[in-house]
Amino acid sequence: MDKISMSANLIDNMAFEMDLNGHRFIMDANESVGGNNLGPRPKPLLLAGLIGCTGMDVVSILKKMKVELDDLNISVEADATTEHPKVYENIKLIYKFRGRDLPMDKLEKAVTLSQDRYCGVTAMLRKATDITHEIIIEDSQN
Amino acid sequence: MDKISMSANLIDNMAFEMDLNGHRFIMDANESVGGNNLGPRPKPLLLAGLIGCTGMDVVSILKKMKVELDDLNISVEADATTEHPKVYENIKLIYKFRGRDLPMDKLEKAVTLSQDRYCGVTAMLRKATDITHEIIIEDSQN
Repeated sequence: MDKISMSANLIDNMAFEMDLNGHRFIMDANESVGGNNLGPRPKPLLLAGLIGCTGMDVVSILKKMKVELDDLNISVEADATTEHPKVYENIKLIYKFRGRDLPMDKLEKAVTLSQDRYCGVTAMLRKATDITHEIIIEDSQN
Repeated sequence: MDKISMSANLIDNMAFEMDLNGHRFIMDANESVGGNNLGPRPKPLLLAGLIGCTGMDVVSILKKMKVELDDLNISVEADATTEHPKVYENIKLIYKFRGRDLPMDKLEKAVTLSQDRYCGVTAMLRKATDITHEIIIEDSQN
């Protein structure tokens, strides 16, 4: 086990500031609930972290497979419940790969390795809800 | 149910850029694994989101209780497993309140309401691991 710790300070009505890997980062609430929108809301960070975690896995695995990408866009869709505590359900990741003659089998393999073995964010959030995925290929020659 | 969606683009070796509530946000890997540290790592965003979620709850609840704070620092400690998928375990939140004659019962009530009823990030991460908390009061008069 490694120990991890981080810390944030209240710097405004509802805004918290922290250092994340050497980067200054502020989270804040919307004006409608008393914040000043100095930074993003906290809960969407779970989905952002999910995209980043699996995205970096996939890029790294495809590099080892010698698959070259021209572009990669990852989006996530989820249902947000409306009763407290408000959580995300039915999370879906959509990987849009762009490149020349991209091999679907290798893309699928990379995504599956990330989702089933490597991505710690997926492993944690999957305890709370289903996480599915879809792969879309856009050919750079078209 | 509300629908939520967000999307990120690969903009560098391992870096993904996205819009979060109108704020440009970049996640990146460390140089040691092929990134350029253009932004924070993805996984710690789960803990950052946890701090922000419960922090905003607590500030909002204490405001309704007419409890005035001079300062609030929230830190989180966790064990990070070392086998894939690497996840966080045994998450502990430490709330450090500073103010004059702060009422411990109200602070504890606000934290408990957040952790047991309101904080959606806690509700999701608690499915994956235990989340405990500690409250520390620093008196502004001392």
